[in-house]
Parts: sequence; structure tokens; C-alpha cells
Amino acid sequence: MAKYWSKLVESLDPYVPGEQPQDQQYIKLNTNESPYPPPPAVAQVLKSFDADRLRRYPDPQSGQLVQALADYHDLDPRQVFVGNGSDEVLAHAFQAFFKQDEAILFPDISYSFYPVYCNLYQIAFETVALDDDFRIDFDGFRRANGGIILPNPNAPTGIALNLAEIREMLADNPESVVIIDEAYVDFGAESARSLIAEFENLLVVQTYSKSRNLAGLRLGFALGNENLIEALQRVKNSFNSYPIDSLTSAIGLAALADETYFQDCNRRVIESRERLSGALGELGFEVFPSSANFVFTRHRQCAAETLYLELKKAGILVRYFSKPRIDDCLRITIGTEAECEKLIEALKTILG
Amino acid sequence: MAKYWSKLVESLDPYVPGEQPQDQQYIKLNTNESPYPPPPAVAQVLKSFDADRLRRYPDPQSGQLVQALADYHDLDPRQVFVGNGSDEVLAHAFQAFFKQDEAILFPDISYSFYPVYCNLYQIAFETVALDDDFRIDFDGFRRANGGIILPNPNAPTGIALNLAEIREMLADNPESVVIIDEAYVDFGAESARSLIAEFENLLVVQTYSKSRNLAGLRLGFALGNENLIEALQRVKNSFNSYPIDSLTSAIGLAALADETYFQDCNRRVIESRERLSGALGELGFEVFPSSANFVFTRHRQCAAETLYLELKKAGILVRYFSKPRIDDCLRITIGTEAECEKLIEALKTILG
Repeated sequence: MAKYWSKLVESLDPYVPGEQPQDQQYIKLNTNESPYPPPPAVAQVLKSFDADRLRRYPDPQSGQLVQALADYHDLDPRQVFVGNGSDEVLAHAFQAFFKQDEAILFPDISYSFYPVYCNLYQIAFETVALDDDFRIDFDGFRRANGGIILPNPNAPTGIALNLAEIREMLADNPESVVIIDEAYVDFGAESARSLIAEFENLLVVQTYSKSRNLAGLRLGFALGNENLIEALQRVKNSFNSYPIDSLTSAIGLAALADETYFQDCNRRVIESRERLSGALGELGFEVFPSSANFVFTRHRQCAAETLYLELKKAGILVRYFSKPRIDDCLRITIGTEAECEKLIEALKTILG
Repeated sequence: MAKYWSKLVESLDPYVPGEQPQDQQYIKLNTNESPYPPPPAVAQVLKSFDADRLRRYPDPQSGQLVQALADYHDLDPRQVFVGNGSDEVLAHAFQAFFKQDEAILFPDISYSFYPVYCNLYQIAFETVALDDDFRIDFDGFRRANGGIILPNPNAPTGIALNLAEIREMLADNPESVVIIDEAYVDFGAESARSLIAEFENLLVVQTYSKSRNLAGLRLGFALGNENLIEALQRVKNSFNSYPIDSLTSAIGLAALADETYFQDCNRRVIESRERLSGALGELGFEVFPSSANFVFTRHRQCAAETLYLELKKAGILVRYFSKPRIDDCLRITIGTEAECEKLIEALKTILG
């Protein structure tokens, strides 16, 4: 153990995000960012924001933003929690709800930050294997647990559960918190937020990073029963009183107001996804049914790692996971229409 | 225990920041913000920043900002860690270094977030009483410990240690990490960063919230041996890959470049502090010798809580701590020259 490190630090196995080359020479289809710019209101905030406001601390409760998110999602402000990206919200949620006697459950193929949080907070976990079609094994979750977390749609598969399935899982686990991580929900899945009034064990987590085109802003939020939100507040207020800076708050508020732009971007991503899925199929790829802003796919002949490396040489970054069960797959973010065409052209060349 | 909360959440005793009234009707001398606007370069960044950049994730390492801070402080980039305010940096440091077998040590009167972090991470601590003049009891820290943390200057007293004293503490504790929390160092104390090459157990923490006039930005950083910085990176990358948003990074970089403005603001704060201390003395206050952007003071006749409430009625917020040993004191942030005059006028009226 390195001198001065706590035992905990030595035992950590940190998360590794997708490559973020700072030269921006690549067509970046590897971290599920939006291919479209943030709504025009964001540039307006930048132009009109009074820099002098930055000398003051922000509102520690981010009250205006929380109220706007509550209004948008038809909830009470006491049912909304905001954080520095949904990763921070998830981290606090693991500490607030999942430090239990029983192990928590999540799918074996899922967001790879979940086991990292478990390590950080010394939370026991068990994984439930997806079936051979990469679908969530519903029955596998019917066992004693200290909590459940699921992305919906799942990542990196893109496959969604429907609301009836989520309702059943919530009803099956009245003693556990069930977190539905909806980072990609706006691209074709159904949000579980409509179940919040009915299930006090439900926490829904969303982000501005994907469907709101603002990954660089670092803004995420949780929706749930006010008892759960209070627990998140207690953790947050024991960690950092002011996680949301004044500019982020103002931009988050402005971006939420442009519903037409939001819907339009998401519709375009969905249309591109369907077109790309078809084109990949014609090139011999198996494409899993995606409800997200990416596709998960494997080629019937060519190794995924080879494709990843060849695409990188051709100036296109996609995500390859060197992990059991999925090391024959690629996760490809939906780019602009033009980027998707370039990807297909590059793949045609590589596959000869 | 509320249903669904982990045992930990129930046991938390969250930090309570100073009041942040959102209507801005008060003369705010309660949270040690700068009375002066951020440097002009900040408004320039807001005007010139391309909103489209926000659709991409930021650099997870905040490389440019880290390099600039390293250059500024004459260190290697591997000796710099940035976080979402120095509160986040401190939280990670507690987890990275202070989860040890022995209790950690800090002064009994100090930044009240320290025991909150200990609660959050289940770290044992012991406090060392300040002497009757609110000075750090040096000998009290000469005992077995799992780490030491000290603000320099101390808060809320404003009293600074000198570099010889810090050096002695570092040399006395070769097996422990010693964190010097320099939130207020630029207002008249000596930074310990010059000791980093000599002491691998030293972590210096600074913030943009006070002397950089950017509390609303949420940006703090740690300086230390690269072995310590690596531990912080491991914790950060197990918690949130991208804590610093793209705008914060750009603003932090631009603000650092205007050394003249920085020095000028700090000089004005120091001059106002000395003038205010004199005026308070004439009104019957005992003023502790401050090296910070606030004064800690008690009136020889009038109760601190009464003064706090009367000042609030008069539209001036100061900080009152209802805590043993200091409940007869007020902490008053140095405002603009005009705000300091208004404070003195209000106190004259209250004290009759």
C-alpha cells in the first residue's frame, strides 16, 4: 500500500470513462453525447449572465432549478434532488440507501460505475446475469436484497424494460429502494416517474448529459418520494453544501424551457438510430433493439476489437469493452446524420 | 430510522452553511465572500465561450486548468488536484487519508465541516482545544494520530500560524498526512505550498471562493506530493469522473491569469480589515488578530446573539455560532469600504 493512503484507497478500482481526446480530431461516437448543440437559450444565458453574481455562493438548495424540474415532472420540489452530474447523484444514492445488511442487485452487464460505487462505500453486491439476448432476467431479481439498481434503457445494451415490468419489480421489493437510472430514457423508453406517487421505494435518476445536450455542464437529478430525497440531502449536506454552481443552475433552468427543441433533437436521434441499425444489419452486424442514443452491435465475422482499432485509425471513436460476454460487441453513439454516413462508409472499407 | 435510509444516513449531522437569502436584500457579511467582482476576464469568457462545447463531456482530468495551477504554484501537474469547491476536495481527502486506525486531530474551534466529514466516512477524531486567546495549542497536537487537519488562518478565528510552526508539525508527524486548509491564506498568512518538495505528508487545500472572488463557481484544489494526489484521483474516479464542468474550467483558467487584479483586491480587503478592526475596537469590541477576509470579535458588554439579531433587523447579516466557547463572538466578513462603514454606523446605533 502506498504510504499515507487509507486501506480503502488501495482497494479501489476506479471507473474509466470513454476516451476524451482533447484535440477533437475524431468523429466521437464513444461517450453517448448528443450530436446536436444545446438549445439556443444556453448561449443567451452565457451572453446575459452577470459575472458579478459569481462572487456569491450559489443557493445551496438550487431552489429555482429544483422548482422548475418539479414543475416539469409534475412533482413537488421536495421530490427533486439535483447533483453535479447523475454520477454524483448515484454516488450519494448508494451511500444513502444501499449500505444495508443484504447485498444489492444489478445486472451483470450494466453501467460499470455501479460496482465502483460499491467498492467506494463497501457495499456488498450480487449481479444478475442478462439472458443470451442481453435482456434483463426478471426472475433473477426475485431474491432477498438490500436494494436494486437498473438502467432503463440498460447500458451498454440499449434494451428497455416497460413500465409494467418496473411496476412489478417495485411491488415485489417493498422493503428495498429500487433505483431506475434513466440516463437514456428520452430516446424511446418510458420513464418510471409516473410511479413515484404509488411507490415510496422508487428513485428515478436522470441527467442533462444526453437528451439535454449538456454533458459539459455536469447536471443530473433524482426524482422520488420526499423521504428518499431527504436522505440524499443529508448525504449531500455532509459532503458539499453547494454542488451546483450559479451558471450551471441558470443554464439548466433555461435549457428546460425549450421543449420543442428537446423533442426535435430526440426525434432526430431516434430516426438516425433506426436508419443506422438498418445499415449495420446490411453489413452483417447483429444490432440489439435500442431505445437509447447508441446501438450495441456485433459483427458476425469480424472481431469487435479489430473494428474498434480500425475505426480509430479512420478517425472514428466508438466504445469497445474488453469484458466477458461483451468483448465481441461495440457500443456506437448516434452521431449526426453525416457522421452516421461516414461511419457506414468506413465500416464498408474495413469489412472490404 | 426513516424507512429505506441506511444506518449511516440516520447518524449524519449535516453541515449548515451561512444563510444565503435569495432576495439579496442584505449587506452580506456572513459567508466570507469577496466584496469585489471577479476579474474582468471572467465576463470575457462568458461572452466568448462557444455554447456548443457544452454538449461534450469535459476533460475528466481538467488538464489545462491543472497545468495552469501547477505553473502558478511552481509545481508539477501531478502535484495538483481540482474539485467542485474545496469542500469536495476536503471530503475526498478525508476518505483518502484519514480512514486510519488512530483518531485524527483538529482544533476544537475550527471549520465545522471537519466533524461532518468524519461522521460521513466513520472516521474517529479528537479535538485539540485552542488556548484562551483562541490560538492553536501546538503541544496539544503532539500525540499519536491518524492525521491532522488545520485551517491556516484558522476559521472562524482568523488567527494564522507561521511557516516555522507548520514545518515543525510536519516534521513531528512523518507517518500522518497533515492537511493545511488555506481557504483564507491570501489575506495575510504564508502558504505552506513551498514545503511540498520537502514534506511528502503535506496536503495544501485552496479555493477560488474567497481571494479569487468566485464562490459561485465552485472550484477548489489541492497541492501536494504526487503520491497524495494519486490517492485523491482514485477516490474522485470512484465517485464522479467529471467533477469540473467545461465553463468552470475555462473561467478558472482565465481568472488565474490576472495577478494584478488578484493582488489589488486582496490588498483592499486587508486595508479594510485593519480599518474595521480599529473602528470595532473603539466601539468596545475585542478583535482577534485576523489574517483572513473576516474578523472574529466579541463585545465587552453586549451579547453576540443580540448583536447578530439587531444587525439582521438593520439589514446586515453577520455570522453567529451558537456553540460552546464562541457563542459570545461574531464572525464578520470584510465587505466593501462602504459596507464596512454601514456596519459601524449600525453598531453605533445598536450599542446606543
